[in-house]
Amino acid sequence: MRRIAILAEGSFGPLSAKTAVGVLRYGADPVVAVIDSASAGKTVDAVLGGSGAVGAGVPVVASVEEALSYDPDTLVIGIAPIGGRLPDAWRPGILRALAAKLNVISGLHHFLGDDPELAAAAKASGATIWDVRRPPAELAQRIREGAPHRAGSHTVYFCGSDCDVGKMTVAFEVTREAQRRGLSAGFAATGQTGIMISGEGIPVDRFISDFVSGGVEGMTLDFANRYDWVFVEGQGSLIHPAYSAVTLGLLHGCAPDLLILCHQAGREAIYSYPDVRIPPLTRVRQIYEEAAGWLKPAPVVAVALNTYGMPDEDARAVIARTEREMGLPTTDPVRYGAGPLVEALLARSDLHA
Amino acid sequence: MRRIAILAEGSFGPLSAKTAVGVLRYGADPVVAVIDSASAGKTVDAVLGGSGAVGAGVPVVASVEEALSYDPDTLVIGIAPIGGRLPDAWRPGILRALAAKLNVISGLHHFLGDDPELAAAAKASGATIWDVRRPPAELAQRIREGAPHRAGSHTVYFCGSDCDVGKMTVAFEVTREAQRRGLSAGFAATGQTGIMISGEGIPVDRFISDFVSGGVEGMTLDFANRYDWVFVEGQGSLIHPAYSAVTLGLLHGCAPDLLILCHQAGREAIYSYPDVRIPPLTRVRQIYEEAAGWLKPAPVVAVALNTYGMPDEDARAVIARTEREMGLPTTDPVRYGAGPLVEALLARSDLHA
Repeated sequence: MRRIAILAEGSFGPLSAKTAVGVLRYGADPVVAVIDSASAGKTVDAVLGGSGAVGAGVPVVASVEEALSYDPDTLVIGIAPIGGRLPDAWRPGILRALAAKLNVISGLHHFLGDDPELAAAAKASGATIWDVRRPPAELAQRIREGAPHRAGSHTVYFCGSDCDVGKMTVAFEVTREAQRRGLSAGFAATGQTGIMISGEGIPVDRFISDFVSGGVEGMTLDFANRYDWVFVEGQGSLIHPAYSAVTLGLLHGCAPDLLILCHQAGREAIYSYPDVRIPPLTRVRQIYEEAAGWLKPAPVVAVALNTYGMPDEDARAVIARTEREMGLPTTDPVRYGAGPLVEALLARSDLHA
Repeated sequence: MRRIAILAEGSFGPLSAKTAVGVLRYGADPVVAVIDSASAGKTVDAVLGGSGAVGAGVPVVASVEEALSYDPDTLVIGIAPIGGRLPDAWRPGILRALAAKLNVISGLHHFLGDDPELAAAAKASGATIWDVRRPPAELAQRIREGAPHRAGSHTVYFCGSDCDVGKMTVAFEVTREAQRRGLSAGFAATGQTGIMISGEGIPVDRFISDFVSGGVEGMTLDFANRYDWVFVEGQGSLIHPAYSAVTLGLLHGCAPDLLILCHQAGREAIYSYPDVRIPPLTRVRQIYEEAAGWLKPAPVVAVALNTYGMPDEDARAVIARTEREMGLPTTDPVRYGAGPLVEALLARSDLHA
């Protein structure tokens, strides 16, 4: 068991620190402190508010120095600045952590292990640096073959209307619910937070573009050999103005049998691109089925709505309306459980190409 | 003006050395020798046979040493071995070239400038090494913004049914024809051969997937500021089982106003994926227009058919049939000139979003 301190300086909150919240909610290891000077003195559950009992009593502190008094052995870089670079302001804290022998886990595009100053600090104290966004050597330059998945396995891709709508969370909830029902189910992480939490997977957005589909295929074939149900975390969106390439490489690479469509209720434009409107969900569904079908057909069989922050009656209303408009089982798996999603998958488990 | 020697050891021929033939056909600088011991003693035009007057009288020689007697100042690595690594057999020749102060231009995945022995040899003689497949620093980690192109500029993307159908060649032919007609036109290279020939552009397939669209946008904005017509070389295909991510990133990144669809007449399956059939060209057109339209509509306005190796009457017949089926101007620009393609673009030059 690790004892984790999470660095989330300047951005710890229910919507602004995806990695931090993911590790708190789904990670197996205890979090002993979160570092964010803006919320120092509060507790994690107080900052996260409505998210439930996550992080009850865990202190938010102002600095790495303060976090050390809670005896962590691991520092997780818990936020992902756009572009993935290491902000200068974080460097002293990371150096302090390494000097105190904390192992550092980072999902930044900027590899901390390749940074001479940080690498030297790790070496000096004996601490390790795990850059989860570094593609594993055996998959980093793999060309996709179009190989069939193990017969009897089912691959499900969690596609989204946008970044940050909850695709990873839905995939975790579905994996847990499937396992609870006794199914052989594996979560195939494709982003840094999922990898940190599950301990395996590949950082798709960091792959060289030529090898995205090949790397994803390699991972999926491996999961399909180990599990009957492979739940592939989605990334980005096919309609995202910056990241659609990552999404298509992932969709074609994992060659899913079934899709679950994830959306945040009420979101009308792509996050941080206010001029890029999200079309009606019926159209988003069509886009994913179209693009999957260029190589292998895969239907959307259910919708997962993120209703975070909505009153319960509003959440129920938007779920009912979506269910009607889409003609598909719809729920918010965090609020109401992933049962309907798992049942929708089982109902179509005849589909395996 | 450079004086170029092309290293194509073991593979110089009309179909087997895309980079060498591209530099010979479209490069601005003279090629003084081609190195391939298998064809030594012949001339380039004799080896390339039916390809026209390319390389008339240029000697094919057996070694870098021999090539030096033709006084080159640049060595271009003109073939791409599988995996992109430097074959051991080429190392002595490259070292000899660097010792003779030849600048070396390479499109290998293996960066010659990062090779300690080669880098030291370059430093010792003052020669330079240009790895064209290294993403330029200012674009390598750029996030796409969705910025508008300069008003009055037109961006054209050359989309393909597959790899290696002639997208780069068509883009070069269209650029030349547009320039011949007095238009302000620039060729935006996206692969190593195009970069070597034009001296600029970006190696899209080598970009980190998160930054493909952003890097392409950065390049396109720059071209659109300098030219009225920006001709963006296509890569791969949206229906390619391994490379579709590269293609979508490029398509969305350059945000074209107009598309030209490139296909090799008679090709029925994706190259080296015999089980992946290419759908009818009407469907390929629909797929590109669909995918472009997720962000910004762009119609296919003409078809470029590669009829290499076909008798003239067959070439004319397939062009006429395609023109009828697609309802679009169609030609083989290498055989019959790019006039109809340029005219199709001019007819739709009102389109600029």
